[in-house]
Amino acid sequence: MAGERATPLLKDELDIVIPTIRNLDFLEMWRPFFQPYHLIIVQDGDPSKTIKVPEGFDYELYNRNDINRILGPKASCISFKDSACRCFGYMVSKKKYIYTIDDDCFVAKDPSGKDINALEQHIKNLLSPSTPHFFNTLYDPYREGTDFVRGYPFSLRGGEPTAVSHGLWLNIPDYDAPTQLVKPRERNTRYVDLVMTIPKGTLFPMCGMNLAFNRDLIGPAMYFGLMGDGQPIGRYDDMWAGWCTKVICDHLNLGIKTGLPYIWHSKASNPFVNLKKEYKGIYWQEEIIPFFKSVTLPKECITVQDCYLELSKQVKAKLSSIDPYFTKLADAMVTWIEAWDELNPSGDASTKLANGAAK
Amino acid sequence: MAGERATPLLKDELDIVIPTIRNLDFLEMWRPFFQPYHLIIVQDGDPSKTIKVPEGFDYELYNRNDINRILGPKASCISFKDSACRCFGYMVSKKKYIYTIDDDCFVAKDPSGKDINALEQHIKNLLSPSTPHFFNTLYDPYREGTDFVRGYPFSLRGGEPTAVSHGLWLNIPDYDAPTQLVKPRERNTRYVDLVMTIPKGTLFPMCGMNLAFNRDLIGPAMYFGLMGDGQPIGRYDDMWAGWCTKVICDHLNLGIKTGLPYIWHSKASNPFVNLKKEYKGIYWQEEIIPFFKSVTLPKECITVQDCYLELSKQVKAKLSSIDPYFTKLADAMVTWIEAWDELNPSGDASTKLANGAAK
Repeated sequence: MAGERATPLLKDELDIVIPTIRNLDFLEMWRPFFQPYHLIIVQDGDPSKTIKVPEGFDYELYNRNDINRILGPKASCISFKDSACRCFGYMVSKKKYIYTIDDDCFVAKDPSGKDINALEQHIKNLLSPSTPHFFNTLYDPYREGTDFVRGYPFSLRGGEPTAVSHGLWLNIPDYDAPTQLVKPRERNTRYVDLVMTIPKGTLFPMCGMNLAFNRDLIGPAMYFGLMGDGQPIGRYDDMWAGWCTKVICDHLNLGIKTGLPYIWHSKASNPFVNLKKEYKGIYWQEEIIPFFKSVTLPKECITVQDCYLELSKQVKAKLSSIDPYFTKLADAMVTWIEAWDELNPSGDASTKLANGAAK
Repeated sequence: MAGERATPLLKDELDIVIPTIRNLDFLEMWRPFFQPYHLIIVQDGDPSKTIKVPEGFDYELYNRNDINRILGPKASCISFKDSACRCFGYMVSKKKYIYTIDDDCFVAKDPSGKDINALEQHIKNLLSPSTPHFFNTLYDPYREGTDFVRGYPFSLRGGEPTAVSHGLWLNIPDYDAPTQLVKPRERNTRYVDLVMTIPKGTLFPMCGMNLAFNRDLIGPAMYFGLMGDGQPIGRYDDMWAGWCTKVICDHLNLGIKTGLPYIWHSKASNPFVNLKKEYKGIYWQEEIIPFFKSVTLPKECITVQDCYLELSKQVKAKLSSIDPYFTKLADAMVTWIEAWDELNPSGDASTKLANGAAK
């Protein structure tokens, strides 16, 4: 079958994290690509419900009871009734790489009609360097058939390690509720054959639907915040993680790529429900984004944990005036790092990065 | 014929500038797209040579004698024996928009086999806003079938005026001499269906082969420097213009787009000759680019001319230590602005921008 390989890339170094509230029938379509890998399923909502996983997949599953048992009081930093709960899976993984995908994402086809092995493309993205310091007009210079163009400084052609690979979506685009309401019929049909690095100093809206990252390099920054049950906001979990991650990647000279691979996003979520979840985010982000644009991290911050804890202080100091929620969120950011370090004791990502071994 | 229109867009508001040393047979191929427009041909090299232009095109032609006659002593700022001479055409134009193309660039085909009307796409790029302040993961949000994604701040969705449209090349990629030597057979076959804004604060290698801009918004920054005859460097004319233009666009909140349209670049220039022209640029750029990255323009600079003169001062102060060439270049930048203002007296672009009328 298309996409099957003799030895799947990074078979023992990558976990697939899936947040869900339903049976995982969607995995049938992904079987040729995902079956060799280990899955971490984070069950949201009612823990007494049984989630069915198709035969033949290797997985571990955590429901809310498991999260509470494993993290104890620190479980408060993990969201409930929101796909933000997925970041628990990042924390319990012991692998170097994570791929996370939503359960309404199917296999897309490339323009030749071939099934796209999204995971394979993410791995290619993560294993080749990024170019955050200067724009290459032919996009990713490490792809076959292309290179750095005239005028690209030679000293920058080594690139930087890639921490994040942000994939896109055919069919239903990732729009906010107002845009969904205004353009209910818009579909993304344009397959753009492109991978590129998001330049240093530029923020972007990171979507968690089809996302891979190097856990050793950036894992502790991939906190999806406090969303859903008991919180005044939803659908900003991945955005929050994206803003924090970008600022930290810029500080640590790590790269973030976006573009290929595409998945097929099957179903638009309800725009009325989304509007309710999003509306605070929509106006808060007008202040949050200038904050992240102006964040600077002191050079003493050399691990992701250092950076993240510093960021939590700045969030508390500068965003709490918007809403008391940000004080709570800043505290949860600290709790998240404590929980991360508890589950990932020394010898972990942060230590490796500090020693320069992660390059 | 494909690409013919009842009323060509901006017919009376756009000049096509072509630097050349040979008969312009290549225009035959472009006839369906270019014939409605006015051409400004800048003849490089021996002025006694006659350049043949195919029948039916509306054009004016300037050779070195014309340039010397029109500019007098200020003609020293216009390069000779280098395609940098093209910027003379920008200066004598009286139109709002410029498209410049090399005479070895032919009509490319899109993946469906249809001839690409490069000029029409440039015009689309220039007439729709840019988004330099935040990255949109579905690229140009103003193209049909796409929009701003979830998490894109609503306050930024108006965009900024687009000053520059940078098009790309199929077949022969725009590589430097070392890359040409190492990869003599590499061809660009990937048609990437994309237009995007280069983010604020990010430099890029601007190629002059297939380039359009709004002369009212950015014209005086499009100086292609001192190259070729009597100069220690060549093939950095467009790069120089690109660095200056990007820094000034960032300061004035103007956008630069790159991507579509493609032209078919027919022939690689001689890599050995190129190496001789480029080699100083290749190591100088390692210092020039950090300089441009750190340039800041005072807020008193509100016209392109203000910005450009300020930049010339900083070039003199900070780059002259690399080579005395930069002192000469800084002086030529001032001469260029003087000549520009002489040929474009008040009521011109800079005044319009200062009054806010250019938006």
